[in-house]
Amino acid sequence: MGCIQSFRQCCDRPKNTNVRISLPAVCFVWQIAMIILFGIFIRYNEESDAHWIEHKTSNNISSNIENDFYFRYPSFQDVHVMIFVGFGFLMTFLKRYSFGAVGFNFLIAGFGLQWALLMQGWFHSLDPMDGKIKIGVESMINADFCVASCLIAYGAVLGKVSPVQLMVMTLFGVTLYAVEEYIILSLIHARDAGGSMVIHTFGAYYGLSISWMLYRPNLDQSKHRIGSVYHSDVFAMIGTLFLWMFWPSFNSAISDHGDGQHRAAINTYLSLAATVLTSIAISSLSQKTGKLDMVHIQNATLAGGVAVGTAAEFMLMPYGSLIVGFCCGIISTLGYIYITPFMEKYLKIHDTCGIHNLHAMPGVIGGIVGAITAAAASKGVYGTEGLANTFDFMGKWKDMMPTQQGGHQAAGLCVALCFGIGGGIIVGCILRLPIWGDAPDNSCFDDDIYWELPEDEENNPPTVEYNNHMRNKAVTESNISLERRQN
Amino acid sequence: MGCIQSFRQCCDRPKNTNVRISLPAVCFVWQIAMIILFGIFIRYNEESDAHWIEHKTSNNISSNIENDFYFRYPSFQDVHVMIFVGFGFLMTFLKRYSFGAVGFNFLIAGFGLQWALLMQGWFHSLDPMDGKIKIGVESMINADFCVASCLIAYGAVLGKVSPVQLMVMTLFGVTLYAVEEYIILSLIHARDAGGSMVIHTFGAYYGLSISWMLYRPNLDQSKHRIGSVYHSDVFAMIGTLFLWMFWPSFNSAISDHGDGQHRAAINTYLSLAATVLTSIAISSLSQKTGKLDMVHIQNATLAGGVAVGTAAEFMLMPYGSLIVGFCCGIISTLGYIYITPFMEKYLKIHDTCGIHNLHAMPGVIGGIVGAITAAAASKGVYGTEGLANTFDFMGKWKDMMPTQQGGHQAAGLCVALCFGIGGGIIVGCILRLPIWGDAPDNSCFDDDIYWELPEDEENNPPTVEYNNHMRNKAVTESNISLERRQN
Amino acid sequence: MGCIQSFRQCCDRPKNTNVRISLPAVCFVWQIAMIILFGIFIRYNEESDAHWIEHKTSNNISSNIENDFYFRYPSFQDVHVMIFVGFGFLMTFLKRYSFGAVGFNFLIAGFGLQWALLMQGWFHSLDPMDGKIKIGVESMINADFCVASCLIAYGAVLGKVSPVQLMVMTLFGVTLYAVEEYIILSLIHARDAGGSMVIHTFGAYYGLSISWMLYRPNLDQSKHRIGSVYHSDVFAMIGTLFLWMFWPSFNSAISDHGDGQHRAAINTYLSLAATVLTSIAISSLSQKTGKLDMVHIQNATLAGGVAVGTAAEFMLMPYGSLIVGFCCGIISTLGYIYITPFMEKYLKIHDTCGIHNLHAMPGVIGGIVGAITAAAASKGVYGTEGLANTFDFMGKWKDMMPTQQGGHQAAGLCVALCFGIGGGIIVGCILRLPIWGDAPDNSCFDDDIYWELPEDEENNPPTVEYNNHMRNKAVTESNISLERRQN
Repeated sequence: MGCIQSFRQCCDRPKNTNVRISLPAVCFVWQIAMIILFGIFIRYNEESDAHWIEHKTSNNISSNIENDFYFRYPSFQDVHVMIFVGFGFLMTFLKRYSFGAVGFNFLIAGFGLQWALLMQGWFHSLDPMDGKIKIGVESMINADFCVASCLIAYGAVLGKVSPVQLMVMTLFGVTLYAVEEYIILSLIHARDAGGSMVIHTFGAYYGLSISWMLYRPNLDQSKHRIGSVYHSDVFAMIGTLFLWMFWPSFNSAISDHGDGQHRAAINTYLSLAATVLTSIAISSLSQKTGKLDMVHIQNATLAGGVAVGTAAEFMLMPYGSLIVGFCCGIISTLGYIYITPFMEKYLKIHDTCGIHNLHAMPGVIGGIVGAITAAAASKGVYGTEGLANTFDFMGKWKDMMPTQQGGHQAAGLCVALCFGIGGGIIVGCILRLPIWGDAPDNSCFDDDIYWELPEDEENNPPTVEYNNHMRNKAVTESNISLERRQN
Repeated sequence: MGCIQSFRQCCDRPKNTNVRISLPAVCFVWQIAMIILFGIFIRYNEESDAHWIEHKTSNNISSNIENDFYFRYPSFQDVHVMIFVGFGFLMTFLKRYSFGAVGFNFLIAGFGLQWALLMQGWFHSLDPMDGKIKIGVESMINADFCVASCLIAYGAVLGKVSPVQLMVMTLFGVTLYAVEEYIILSLIHARDAGGSMVIHTFGAYYGLSISWMLYRPNLDQSKHRIGSVYHSDVFAMIGTLFLWMFWPSFNSAISDHGDGQHRAAINTYLSLAATVLTSIAISSLSQKTGKLDMVHIQNATLAGGVAVGTAAEFMLMPYGSLIVGFCCGIISTLGYIYITPFMEKYLKIHDTCGIHNLHAMPGVIGGIVGAITAAAASKGVYGTEGLANTFDFMGKWKDMMPTQQGGHQAAGLCVALCFGIGGGIIVGCILRLPIWGDAPDNSCFDDDIYWELPEDEENNPPTVEYNNHMRNKAVTESNISLERRQN
Repeated sequence: MGCIQSFRQCCDRPKNTNVRISLPAVCFVWQIAMIILFGIFIRYNEESDAHWIEHKTSNNISSNIENDFYFRYPSFQDVHVMIFVGFGFLMTFLKRYSFGAVGFNFLIAGFGLQWALLMQGWFHSLDPMDGKIKIGVESMINADFCVASCLIAYGAVLGKVSPVQLMVMTLFGVTLYAVEEYIILSLIHARDAGGSMVIHTFGAYYGLSISWMLYRPNLDQSKHRIGSVYHSDVFAMIGTLFLWMFWPSFNSAISDHGDGQHRAAINTYLSLAATVLTSIAISSLSQKTGKLDMVHIQNATLAGGVAVGTAAEFMLMPYGSLIVGFCCGIISTLGYIYITPFMEKYLKIHDTCGIHNLHAMPGVIGGIVGAITAAAASKGVYGTEGLANTFDFMGKWKDMMPTQQGGHQAAGLCVALCFGIGGGIIVGCILRLPIWGDAPDNSCFDDDIYWELPEDEENNPPTVEYNNHMRNKAVTESNISLERRQN
């Protein structure tokens, strides 16, 4: 702790938020690198290549509809909406950081998905014949998934970092993701269709660790900007609802064709429905007069989708999904009420969007639920073929037992946690260097630092005349309210 | 009428809007009940169960793509968006009730879909072998449909009821829906793919009857809040457009595979396009200077989708769809101009969103169009097999004639009307009891009753302290800008 | 130029913005005409007709899933969202023209798609047997595509024309589109899956030419309304993101089944990702302090999707897509910075949304990329069957060489340019007639002309106290403006 503190202090020089050189440089250099690496490594796979007709004939595929595109593309588009509109708008709740929320989300995702195609390709779909990565619709979904983990991490540091820091965070985040995903899914052979462990647990602890490393003791100076206005809360509901509605597609997007996708969608649908009720119940209970808090509605209602991620394709049973959603709605809402303030005060972790409540805890719960459900699997419930199919007990893993699988699931969860926390601390150190153009403590959560703002009354009152006008207005308004009081 | 009036008066005690006990209690108890009932009754169907592989082999299904999931899931997601974003945002038009619109919509739908899965399951998909309800993607669509009828009813009472009342209204609404749906579709054997009768007519009259029972003579006290502001109207357009765009999916979601879904989508697409033009025409005609009214654009443009619901899967012909849309655009807009004020003044029915114009009248028209189209069906137009397929003239109904079917359709419409009006009156009586925490007459249409509101300028400026603060702020800011100028 | 100027002057009479007769008349008459023409000409095609069962049997189609509906409907819905929400909300950025943006977009699209079904039907899908146009899901996509070109044109004249002018513009736009599409795709046999030439180049130059013909020398009088406010920029991002996310569906919607659709989606996905980075880089570079400009984020990030339209279904290769996106992000952003002001100042073309940068230049680039990629195609890359399939070297064109195809592509681009510019000039002349109810120069970009606006603070203050306050404010403001004038 001591060395971390001293490192922190050494980094605390006066801030320069001009990113005119660094941001374009990062964008251009990295994009050019992407083009070169794509040129060397990335090709279409057999289902998206013009040789598909020959492939079809030689593999005795009767119809074009058997192309994986038709199994997964609708789900891909739903996931895509979650990444760009869902995450983007969920973070617009701050009164003066909506541009940064939706704009930087766009930037991170645009870069991250390219880098993810490469990183995941090297680990998962490198063709040994020609050393090329072959991409198709499933690769695009996986790239979007990978980006999701970085966007979750963004939630913890929203408003406190520069776009350059976000790019660095994404570069390392995607890299770490690809490695942990490879370890969890391929080496350990855990199953994680909806990414409770791989995406949510990793992403959330990665973001929280970074936020811990970037802790700002004087953030109080920007406190008046950490809040919403009426319309920004409605904008955030757009994000919430698109995440909520399309979560069944998220959890089923890369499940097995047929019953796997079907079941994953049903389980997620049910879990999310239960979460809505318990979130609202706890939110109402937590206030003296039973009023609801928009923060809970915007976030905690989604916890059920996170927590059912791993087990979504298993035979969790409809009531099992409801139970998972029921518990997560409660835990997540309580997290917003008690844990987030606690973490800020005692652990020095400031978590702007409360990702600990929405992704970290439900992600861990999802991993545990997955392990239990896997360990409890039986041939009676799944059928012999169904069991082998669902858990992919094939090839090298064909003699595996469900109980063993449960252990592997638990191991996967630990790996996700380690990568998240460890990776976050290291990347957080890098991001503390005073070269990235982040805002001073009194200018956090303010779009004015990185965006040209329209000159509307609300934000740019910068002339003397205008202030005279404001003074008059204030005087008038106090008269009005005095009059009202007298009536 | 007399006894209703006296019952009304007896219920009119001073209001207590604290829902801190009642709302959490209802949410928790009902959610736990759902878990227990799901545990007892609900299982995956053969297409979402892990035994699908065996089922596929034994039923000689060649490919996973034949799973109903791939026929219906994209439509399901569109319907899902309509329910949560469409209905939710359509109601955000009120200047100070956007949280309640989108938030309570979320609550109702989250509870309603669970209860609908059970109620509809008992009537439609109870497996006689094991007494279980088997659910799949079609069940999810039907549950969303059922919820739609409750959300339509919410439109009539928007801003005037408490969340607890809404939950009660949904509980009964879903129950009534399941019964009338069973009578209309199974007993009477009417066809209603897009639910003009089952969803829209029922839902609208259910809501209007409740609104009648809950009539508030002194609602004028909240009159200044029944209106929109510029941005709330733009938010409402999000709802309008998502409803409008995805209506073809709504009407085709549970139609027959193949030509049925295809035709339903085309008919709805065309009908809605025609409605846009006539709504705008009447809206412009109704104002002295030809200005358009956002209320009409937000609502009446959707009437064509409602009215083509029943007949969407029939051979209505493209021009037939246009004619339906043409008429409904006119009727619905005229409804907003003349009928809604009339109903409020003379019938004591206050209809916040004008569901009478958007759902009730077009729903009845849809039922009539369906009856006529069915009665006019012929083997020449449909083909022998096509006729049997489209109208499901199979099994017990295999000797039915199209003209008879027309009669059955008309009978279905009457059932929907009776259930809507009758059910609404009874439920309205229950909701009048002074225990539900609804707002007093001077606090309707105000989020402040049930929501923690952000402290932004727009809504809470009325204290002296605040104005002092504003004055200080203005002074400070003028100093700042003076300093800036001097630099 | 001289005669154009004098024609302009002759048209410049005092403006009457009352559209109470003209708008309803146009809507009713044209909608009735549509019904009659649909009655005469339009029928279901064999996949949406009730005879599908017989068709299936006689064509040996094994499953309902082979119906084109299941190949294209998810993409159709994505395209539909782009047309109504994407284009509609992209234009809401103006502070006081959001109703007009989203409302007139709705009107244009609602009319345009009907007229497009007819026009495109006459050219492409007229059944020689019975003289009827047979429509299905592909017709709906093509109608939406056609509408897109008119909505692009609307972007250039946003805020400066009346709804009646927009209807006239759409009537001619759709007609011209159908003819140029027929020439380019059928006569010249160019390929253009994503419509870089047919939709974007044509639509943009059509709109720019109209804007040139309608040039208003005194538009400065409305200058204060050409700008955004904070929340209107967030609304516009909804449009941007839905366009961005669903563009892969746009470019793949009518590609060949199987690998064609798959590849088009991948190419578009990659191109758009690269565009985001370079747009942001140039936007940051263009400002002294590296701040980003929302105009660039909202628009230039989409240029990659336009530019990859023609070549999306070709073997452009993933790195090729990235290169296209890379270049277009740069060019489009530079366009917003340098070319739009230049065009306004020197060419007398006022382009409200900057469609020259988003559609015209990228569209032309897309046509050129398409020509080069086609000319470079080889049997090695595509396979023999793949080459014939991708470029449709069948029937009459079976001996065509890729190099020839490249020439045909280039010819197609020229046709699109000619139709756009020529058609725009002619239609612009018609729209200059002083009978269409467009706004005077000092009332452009103002919803108040054509819409009933809600009485919110910003425009219609209601109470005495408030009016006192407003009076003070007005006094202050008049002082301000006096001071400004003195400076």
